Amino acid sequence: MPNFSIGVDLGGTNLRIAAVNQQGDLMEKVTLGTRVALGKDHVIHEMCDAIRLLAAKYRDGGALQGIGIGVPGIIDMKTGMLRESPNLPGWAESPVQAQIEGLLGTRVILENDANVAALGEKWLGAARDVDDMAMLTLGTGVGGGIVLKGRIWHGMTGMAGEFGHMTVEPEGPPCGCGNRGCLEQYASATAVVRMAKEAIASGRAPGLAKAASSDPEFNAKAIYNLAIQGEEEARKIFGRLGRALGICIANLVNAFNLNMYVVGGGVSSAWEAFSPFIFEELRQRSLVYAATAPAFLSGGEGASGHVGPEGSTKTIITRALLGSDAGLYGAAQLPMTIT
Amino acid sequence: MPNFSIGVDLGGTNLRIAAVNQQGDLMEKVTLGTRVALGKDHVIHEMCDAIRLLAAKYRDGGALQGIGIGVPGIIDMKTGMLRESPNLPGWAESPVQAQIEGLLGTRVILENDANVAALGEKWLGAARDVDDMAMLTLGTGVGGGIVLKGRIWHGMTGMAGEFGHMTVEPEGPPCGCGNRGCLEQYASATAVVRMAKEAIASGRAPGLAKAASSDPEFNAKAIYNLAIQGEEEARKIFGRLGRALGICIANLVNAFNLNMYVVGGGVSSAWEAFSPFIFEELRQRSLVYAATAPAFLSGGEGASGHVGPEGSTKTIITRALLGSDAGLYGAAQLPMTIT
Repeated sequence: MPNFSIGVDLGGTNLRIAAVNQQGDLMEKVTLGTRVALGKDHVIHEMCDAIRLLAAKYRDGGALQGIGIGVPGIIDMKTGMLRESPNLPGWAESPVQAQIEGLLGTRVILENDANVAALGEKWLGAARDVDDMAMLTLGTGVGGGIVLKGRIWHGMTGMAGEFGHMTVEPEGPPCGCGNRGCLEQYASATAVVRMAKEAIASGRAPGLAKAASSDPEFNAKAIYNLAIQGEEEARKIFGRLGRALGICIANLVNAFNLNMYVVGGGVSSAWEAFSPFIFEELRQRSLVYAATAPAFLSGGEGASGHVGPEGSTKTIITRALLGSDAGLYGAAQLPMTIT
Repeated sequence: MPNFSIGVDLGGTNLRIAAVNQQGDLMEKVTLGTRVALGKDHVIHEMCDAIRLLAAKYRDGGALQGIGIGVPGIIDMKTGMLRESPNLPGWAESPVQAQIEGLLGTRVILENDANVAALGEKWLGAARDVDDMAMLTLGTGVGGGIVLKGRIWHGMTGMAGEFGHMTVEPEGPPCGCGNRGCLEQYASATAVVRMAKEAIASGRAPGLAKAASSDPEFNAKAIYNLAIQGEEEARKIFGRLGRALGICIANLVNAFNLNMYVVGGGVSSAWEAFSPFIFEELRQRSLVYAATAPAFLSGGEGASGHVGPEGSTKTIITRALLGSDAGLYGAAQLPMTIT
């Protein structure tokens, strides 16, 4: 029987725990709410109880390699301290890894959630045949992770992969980080809604205005639905999103010449609406892309799905394949690869 | 006696050859012109003659480790083929490494010139105490090289480090690469002269106009001299240069969180005129920089010169230290480190 490990996706809302074996089979997944209001110790104890149950259940089948935990925040990889975590109030500057290790008596590896998502897509998803890749996660904000030679690239202080705050337009909309024109101001769900509201306020988007007035949620998904129905202003928003992503990815391609750039997160569901604009920008803005574009690959540029080893000297930009499970798989792989 | 190797900087104008020992001492340097008009074979034979003489002279002192050659162009690192080289007309798609190895009977490593410059600064220059760094070379164009964990990062097809073609301003001036607003359109010697001519043509730069009419060369150095004399329009040009560099470096810092970014090349002589603007942009545009800026390091932000290991969790942006010898040192180190 293959050995296994436990991957945890510890989000600000959901707490998900999975047992995954070395072959990448998800044996069981448990989903709990993250009751952040009850405090860090409560959440950690609940999580550890669930991990213990899952580990006990599969222990006869193979050896437990350890626990990998993806957390939204900045982690000191040397000490396992969680330095900052806006979505987990009260958790900053605490030795989370040591606390969980103490409770479980098992090896625990803490890792940033965008990094484990990238690792998951590398292990079992869109990037499984490449060694060097970056993943951009388009959600409420825009996160990112980098995998070089099969391992997460942390950078000097664990802050690598802040693609959401790369400047796309020097005089663009202000961002919470203090900059203007960050990618996140164009390519996040928050930005999609903001751009729609701006269009409504300008008076040039009666279709969006009508939809917004009848839909109390009026979220990025609703705006995407309008775009695929052909609503012009909604389409323009996804055009801006795709162009901003294209500028950012072109810069990454020119700087680092990686094999693959994977676009994931909830907003990537709108891939059909924005991806043509990514490729348009890339062809104009990246001489490295122009020299390595996969024009002759089956499916061609922008094909969605798994790209095999025949693409190993082509620059591939594609959708993520594992959805919200990417982080669980990546977290589970951590104890299998890091020795 | 320490072993030694021979480093070559094979440029479109100059051909420089140096014997360097393992401790990084430059034992002797020979400078020849690159007589490109006489063709590839002629240049290669002249170079090999000079290498043979130098190798024979120092052979009694230690073993020759091999020959490293920096070339302006794209190299297939697996085969040693020179794929493209605009400055060496007629050299494209030729097996340069194999040809030289055949003539010398010694191990030869061909490498891109911007990459060897980065490696030189990492070995003996500004970045000698860090493992992960990028170098931006501001010359006629803007080149770049990346060193990760002490080794050159080539990327998938050897094209990593094209910082000069990262987009800084999506609607900026057109670039020869087909894009608009590339860093090279702001931060190269060519761009400095172009910006000065634009200012003159607009009629708002009488000081520059006067200087240009009396100086048939009117190059980037002349414009820098005006800037340090306080000429307002000349100063603005270096302000634009620094801001563009700052945007580009901020993007690199946010994406890869490297320890050090070294600015070299002829235009870096104007460091005093443009560097304050780099740091201004960085502080605004990079949350990663804001969290890791070396405010308390001796010399502080923007200090020029060698930064010791105490800066190992700080993001350092600094001038190159080795000038045009960086590439010679880096080329010489190639046979010492690659096995």
